[in-house]
Amino acid sequence: MAGLTSQEISLLFLELGILLAVARLLGELAEHYNQPTVLGEIIAGILLGPTILGSIAPEINLLLFPLSGNRAIVLEGLTTIAIALFLLVAGMEVDLSTIWKQGKVATNVGIMGILIPFIVSFPAGMLFPTILGRQSEANPFIFSFFFGIALSITALPVIARILMDLNLYRSDFGMIVIASAIFNDVIGWILFAAVLGMIGTAPAHNFAVGQIILMTLGFGVIMLTIGRWLINKILPAIHAHLSWPGGFLGFALAVTLFCSALTEWIGTHAIFGAFLAGIAIGDSPHVREHTRTILNQFISFIFAPLFFASIGLKVNFAIHFDLSAVITVLIIACLAKIVGCGLGARMSGMTRRESLAMGFSMNARGAMEIILGLLALQYGLIKEKMFIALVIMALVTSIMCGPAIKYILKPVKPRRFIDFLLSRTFIGSLRAKNREEAIEELSNVISTELGIGAESIKKEVWEREKIMPTGIGHSVAIPHARIDGLTTPILGVGLSRLGIDFDAPDGEPAGIIFMILTPKQDNGAQLEILADISRTFRFPDIREKALKAINYTEFKAVIKSKTTL
Amino acid sequence: MAGLTSQEISLLFLELGILLAVARLLGELAEHYNQPTVLGEIIAGILLGPTILGSIAPEINLLLFPLSGNRAIVLEGLTTIAIALFLLVAGMEVDLSTIWKQGKVATNVGIMGILIPFIVSFPAGMLFPTILGRQSEANPFIFSFFFGIALSITALPVIARILMDLNLYRSDFGMIVIASAIFNDVIGWILFAAVLGMIGTAPAHNFAVGQIILMTLGFGVIMLTIGRWLINKILPAIHAHLSWPGGFLGFALAVTLFCSALTEWIGTHAIFGAFLAGIAIGDSPHVREHTRTILNQFISFIFAPLFFASIGLKVNFAIHFDLSAVITVLIIACLAKIVGCGLGARMSGMTRRESLAMGFSMNARGAMEIILGLLALQYGLIKEKMFIALVIMALVTSIMCGPAIKYILKPVKPRRFIDFLLSRTFIGSLRAKNREEAIEELSNVISTELGIGAESIKKEVWEREKIMPTGIGHSVAIPHARIDGLTTPILGVGLSRLGIDFDAPDGEPAGIIFMILTPKQDNGAQLEILADISRTFRFPDIREKALKAINYTEFKAVIKSKTTL
Repeated sequence: MAGLTSQEISLLFLELGILLAVARLLGELAEHYNQPTVLGEIIAGILLGPTILGSIAPEINLLLFPLSGNRAIVLEGLTTIAIALFLLVAGMEVDLSTIWKQGKVATNVGIMGILIPFIVSFPAGMLFPTILGRQSEANPFIFSFFFGIALSITALPVIARILMDLNLYRSDFGMIVIASAIFNDVIGWILFAAVLGMIGTAPAHNFAVGQIILMTLGFGVIMLTIGRWLINKILPAIHAHLSWPGGFLGFALAVTLFCSALTEWIGTHAIFGAFLAGIAIGDSPHVREHTRTILNQFISFIFAPLFFASIGLKVNFAIHFDLSAVITVLIIACLAKIVGCGLGARMSGMTRRESLAMGFSMNARGAMEIILGLLALQYGLIKEKMFIALVIMALVTSIMCGPAIKYILKPVKPRRFIDFLLSRTFIGSLRAKNREEAIEELSNVISTELGIGAESIKKEVWEREKIMPTGIGHSVAIPHARIDGLTTPILGVGLSRLGIDFDAPDGEPAGIIFMILTPKQDNGAQLEILADISRTFRFPDIREKALKAINYTEFKAVIKSKTTL
Repeated sequence: MAGLTSQEISLLFLELGILLAVARLLGELAEHYNQPTVLGEIIAGILLGPTILGSIAPEINLLLFPLSGNRAIVLEGLTTIAIALFLLVAGMEVDLSTIWKQGKVATNVGIMGILIPFIVSFPAGMLFPTILGRQSEANPFIFSFFFGIALSITALPVIARILMDLNLYRSDFGMIVIASAIFNDVIGWILFAAVLGMIGTAPAHNFAVGQIILMTLGFGVIMLTIGRWLINKILPAIHAHLSWPGGFLGFALAVTLFCSALTEWIGTHAIFGAFLAGIAIGDSPHVREHTRTILNQFISFIFAPLFFASIGLKVNFAIHFDLSAVITVLIIACLAKIVGCGLGARMSGMTRRESLAMGFSMNARGAMEIILGLLALQYGLIKEKMFIALVIMALVTSIMCGPAIKYILKPVKPRRFIDFLLSRTFIGSLRAKNREEAIEELSNVISTELGIGAESIKKEVWEREKIMPTGIGHSVAIPHARIDGLTTPILGVGLSRLGIDFDAPDGEPAGIIFMILTPKQDNGAQLEILADISRTFRFPDIREKALKAINYTEFKAVIKSKTTL
């Protein structure tokens, strides 16, 4: 039997538990403030690693997260697998057909988004190796080449997420951004594979540089053509003959592991194979939504946090922080990318405003930049200070992306009713027997919250209700009114197990009563919230569960189960 | 940076890929023959490990699966985590309330199913330590205690699966078996934790035996009461405030890792904590079906195969195979368990036949026995030959369980139409324009398959069709007939993109036409198959996708996506 002692096993579980819990919590916190999850995960690692915990309580830090010994080896193995799986998922999100559909613009933006950053960064890498933290033994040419590529990569998942949040994902603008990002990424990764090939990994170098690059390119081409075709042929047979989803999951992971092994052996890196496997697998229309979801969620919520948090365990972000490197990298990265992609967009006939928004979108680096930087650090190409500068640049560009697009394009995001629910205006069990009493009860709680007289609220809502009853069927009623002087919508919710007749078209009494007050001058608010409520309560299970909620927290949990889908 | 070289990473990915692929494939093969998946997974390890590959090509075996060094450490860490996660899922399947509902019988069977095996095995362990492979340094008392417990454990997941296959899961008999198995398992695991406590792990022994047992029991009681209550309180808040399902997944895994760390630290084993965490989490009604599925599927299809296959890598099943140990263990295990549980059932008023079936059900040991054996081996309590005997006993008892119940109870399993589909009687695109032509086309292909004249088949079906058209709506039609001399049902399937009018109640033309021939004397077959088809095609998405299938494989894949759910 090999060597993990009981003590090591115990601490390994503790270490992973802490890492996962803190990474997930801070990831959630970041999301809560509309920031990329990876920001929280990286901070979790910084808190638990040498930077913070290590300087407060170094012995606890080393006990929990040792830098050598069996547990360090297990964690390294685990995070290496985690990052390959993360790239599998990232690859599966790449939809090559989008590029063909948005051909011209995507190509222009994609190429300019690599060319301009490269033209700016390559000389910078040659001229200022000290500021940019070139490792002393590293080849200046390879270093500059890496720097050029590193600044040109984009973060597809981050951009997709931000566009969704801004309700722009399915717009024309959104589709062009996504297509450009995919094009940009595929080219960027191939070039990065070439960089890795140039570095090789000195001790176990199997091939010469030229061979590595050729083999990597060859493997990439094969995977995206024959490999893609073959996987698409094999999948229906797997679905027909093997159990589901076990057959697919096993197949997808085995293919990924083999591709990772191959590219690592060639001399680039395991993640490159995993990314290609992801593109080839994800492209097949035979991949079912359910299996995609299982893979995606387990990997994004378990493996990815572990990997990104583990970065902070290896590097001391305080000691190696170098302001001039951070600022230099940040400025070059932003300027080159925004100008490059903006120009590409303008050349393709987009408006000035849209071109600028395109620049800021493509500027988001996110997780990919961090992975790139980590590899360069591990391969001895860059110093810690440059790695930190890249991490910060990746996070800052991701953070500024959303607000920048919002400021430039001012997209209209329909309001969701869930954002206006308040525990203080929630009545778990209405005493009311009829419409008027229900409206009165809800007016009372809202009145306390708003500081407006309950009588005047009730009057407005009841006037409206008398004109036409607000039972919308499916046991939901939505009495509402526009109130003068209100600056933001406010909702009251009352549940009635017996049901109150709101004269719904389906004749059912209402068990869930939303009272909706919106600002008088805001035309959209009321419609958007009404539409959102009726959309949400179309699902019979949500109505049933919402009616059974015993308090505000449970009620909100039930609603969220649908609205986050 | 810690120590994995590029060569090691490459081989690690290759090793995991091979292990996963072979384990999944053989697992599927086992399932195909209605055998427990774990059988295939264990055999995968035996093939790839020292037993087979190691004796044919020892250098390849050692290159792929080294027994020491960094990669062995990573694999050990990974499989240790895998087994804890497997126990999390197993624990989540334990529904404590079932025990209360079946109180008396479950308690009787559960207790007798532990008592009798223990009474028989404990003296056997004391009297025949050599045959039973006691490790020379092991304490005879602890060894016999372990042997007693090992033979009394049951395999809940295996039994549940077999009962489902036999269509007995939701029967009264099935519920009693499940309740007894749960009761048996919970007691068995607590006793096993006590055994582990007695062994301790010599070098890093934190506590005395008494303390370990007390702390383990205390932790168990706390988890099943306060822990369960607390988790149930926390889950709605997680669903309300964190993203979904990421919040839950992170929470469940972090809780599991912490519990595992704690029990490992106490001196029992990580899996015990994971199992308790699983029971406590799985018991909450707030765990959503979707998240349960994600956890279950990812862990059962990825982590479990890796773990079970890895067992065969560590032990040479040929060299250490000892026939007398295997036979002794097998006989004692089967007799004691079947008699014990049978008696318990008989005492509770079950019929003789049912009691015997109960005995054989509870006799299935499955994966749990293997895990127990592995721990005893790692803790230096038993020799390899005893471990192998336990593995074989676990597999044999699981394999014989299904056929035995079937023979004793002769349950009737409704036939599924998917079992009678044939690629040779599938017509991807019917030329027919009307009912009669469609029936003729299908009669022709079935005729070739059966060797019965096409004319006589068509006549029978068309006669039936003329009495009452067989369009059942949702664009499905089911022309059918009973044929004299047929011994088993046979189906023909024809797809028609244009649709053929089968006079369905909803007026829609039929795109999917099933022609169903059943044996004349078999009353049930026709009804069961018809009911199964109409049940399956209730789902709109399956109709749409089935209509788009371009060949038999795709068609079957679409159907399976629903029938395996």
